[in-house]
Amino acid sequence: MTDGILNGLRIVEGSAFVAIPLAGMTLAQMGAEVIRFDRIGGGLDAGRWPLAPSGQSLFWAGMNKGKKSVAVDMKHPRGKELISQIITAPGEDAGLFLTNLRVRGWMDYETLSAARPDLCMVTLTGDRHGRPQVDYTVNPALGIPHLTGPEGSEAPVAHALPAWDLMAGQMAVSAMLAIERHRLRTGQGQEVEFSLKDAAAAAIGHLGMIGDATLNGDARGKAGNALYGAYGQDFLCADGKRVMVIGLTDRQWRGIVKLTQTHEAMAGIKTRAGESLSDEGARWRHRAAITQALTPWFAARPASQAGQEMDAAGLTWSQFRSPAEAVREDADLTPDNPMFSQLHQPGLGTFAVPGSPLNFARFERETPQAAPMLGAHTEEVLADVAGLASGEIGQLFDAGVVKGPHPVEQAA
Amino acid sequence: MTDGILNGLRIVEGSAFVAIPLAGMTLAQMGAEVIRFDRIGGGLDAGRWPLAPSGQSLFWAGMNKGKKSVAVDMKHPRGKELISQIITAPGEDAGLFLTNLRVRGWMDYETLSAARPDLCMVTLTGDRHGRPQVDYTVNPALGIPHLTGPEGSEAPVAHALPAWDLMAGQMAVSAMLAIERHRLRTGQGQEVEFSLKDAAAAAIGHLGMIGDATLNGDARGKAGNALYGAYGQDFLCADGKRVMVIGLTDRQWRGIVKLTQTHEAMAGIKTRAGESLSDEGARWRHRAAITQALTPWFAARPASQAGQEMDAAGLTWSQFRSPAEAVREDADLTPDNPMFSQLHQPGLGTFAVPGSPLNFARFERETPQAAPMLGAHTEEVLADVAGLASGEIGQLFDAGVVKGPHPVEQAA
Repeated sequence: MTDGILNGLRIVEGSAFVAIPLAGMTLAQMGAEVIRFDRIGGGLDAGRWPLAPSGQSLFWAGMNKGKKSVAVDMKHPRGKELISQIITAPGEDAGLFLTNLRVRGWMDYETLSAARPDLCMVTLTGDRHGRPQVDYTVNPALGIPHLTGPEGSEAPVAHALPAWDLMAGQMAVSAMLAIERHRLRTGQGQEVEFSLKDAAAAAIGHLGMIGDATLNGDARGKAGNALYGAYGQDFLCADGKRVMVIGLTDRQWRGIVKLTQTHEAMAGIKTRAGESLSDEGARWRHRAAITQALTPWFAARPASQAGQEMDAAGLTWSQFRSPAEAVREDADLTPDNPMFSQLHQPGLGTFAVPGSPLNFARFERETPQAAPMLGAHTEEVLADVAGLASGEIGQLFDAGVVKGPHPVEQAA
Repeated sequence: MTDGILNGLRIVEGSAFVAIPLAGMTLAQMGAEVIRFDRIGGGLDAGRWPLAPSGQSLFWAGMNKGKKSVAVDMKHPRGKELISQIITAPGEDAGLFLTNLRVRGWMDYETLSAARPDLCMVTLTGDRHGRPQVDYTVNPALGIPHLTGPEGSEAPVAHALPAWDLMAGQMAVSAMLAIERHRLRTGQGQEVEFSLKDAAAAAIGHLGMIGDATLNGDARGKAGNALYGAYGQDFLCADGKRVMVIGLTDRQWRGIVKLTQTHEAMAGIKTRAGESLSDEGARWRHRAAITQALTPWFAARPASQAGQEMDAAGLTWSQFRSPAEAVREDADLTPDNPMFSQLHQPGLGTFAVPGSPLNFARFERETPQAAPMLGAHTEEVLADVAGLASGEIGQLFDAGVVKGPHPVEQAA
């Protein structure tokens, strides 16, 4: 990263899995120097799926782009000291630490801040009781799988996206920038702590879902792929492809009726329903009848033609694709989109790699950097950040307390 | 908000729906003064579902907590001027503007920054081409519904959570804090622009899913409620309740086998598979056999007992609940959790309302503030922020260019 908006900032990351690695990478793609430390051989997420055909983790490569990697024996007393030194190393724009490792004692804020009282630390936990939680446990507890899946079906359906982790990762970025801002203005550091479950629980509250469940019970239920509370539905086209069309706003709704020439059918629904479909709630209540009226239009044309007509009419729509179709057919997921670069990564393969989605007017878009090999920056960071002399660094390597670039250890 | 980490910061928000309103509210719950402007009668999201039994929007109330509301005729030339004045009002910690309204011309960065060259503005669009997109269109295009739903089924299943909006909202917070930081250090303002689709496309890239789809095609497919790439599965308990148990890490996995006393069954699976289940990928490949071996343990006890035993064993697990069960049974979603306050909101009802999930060590947790009535702060903001004299304010009210507190206009 040569010229990003966070240039000069140094952040140390002790992490695994999604949220905190994503937070660190997001900061790295905004120009910060991000140093991730791991145990020798790799952390808990070193082999996380998806994998490349070689067996190496595409996930790890995706989550650690543009970071520096330090590999340390974290059970060795000298290893713990080294990590503490790296976290608390001097520098006006340093002393920032992101973690979800739940290591008690030497990695606590109280202990670390003894060496650097203005330390800024973001700690993500599982739940407010300190128990581990993952996206796959938080989501069922909050009731989202109860609302997902075909109308009328009973079984809960968990989403395939680690949505809560993605959101929490971005919250960790905000939290870090907020405490660093406070330090810039006052000189004071602090810890900010939050849990994945609290972040998710707050979000469903913000969306009105806690109020809804409290006041209306489980009236909502499942609704297939329908847009909740207004109109939006998926349709099969003549070629078997499926599209989603949105009638959330009144303007979008009128556009759908106009394009599909269904004024008469909609007037009939209005008469039978006794309420105007310009009310979004009425569109939601009568969505089955609306969908029935719209179905022939989509069934009569292939998705490509439907799409052209919907584009020309200014509708909001998209096509359902498998992931492989998406990367093949949607230019927004290819280097045609300046956010992506086609990168060859040794051991992984060649594919489109995203940089930051944020376009800062005063900074050029950065080309995304590949993830480092585990331990690739051990020597550099010990010298430049921890300030160790080369003789001492050599001894640490010889004693196996740290390790240079090496592949992930595969499980037995 | 009396003493939050962003105290003193003033942000103006022109927005609708999820991401940008959430960004503004997140900043408000961190102590910033956030002024949202809307057209008289309410913006596009004023009646967004879910609704209270009264018909008022729980969604709007959730997304606008603790903000100031200004209602302006945005089609009136004087209305446009007033909004511009509010956005560009002087103050070292002001001149920050969040928007997703896609109003061209007078609300562009170029126009607004003529009045305040250090303006910091975050603009969220639908896609990089400037087309509107919503969570419900972005998600199908990226292939997530193809991966969601029961193993072996064909139909795409869209998640019920506006996951991309939630993530993008938090990114907008980070983007604002990053450009405000740059302004603090250099005096320079700027716009940062990003699209919902790019934010989502980058995220699936970071997760390794673009590499996976490019290199492995659609090998992944649907897997029901299983945790992808390791072990994690839902089970029916004796009382018909369903729980999710996680064997992502080796430690979690060993905990499951120990608690359920299935060492022998797992050894058999290992022998037949020819690979050790301590490899997370092996657990994924042989998940059907593993699940079969674990099923009797869950089927033999009610969820409450299974939960107690799993807690005692230190397992990571949760229970599937409907939203109404969740707010009734899970103390983390009630005021037992200090993040929540039981609030009575006129016209809505009484329910648990979340504050910020972030715990800043140097700031007390703030009690969440209710959302304002539309236009509740029109007069105050015109006087204190736009600096208008009371006579002029009176004329604007009389001419209907602005409006004080009033209920949302219901659609015809």
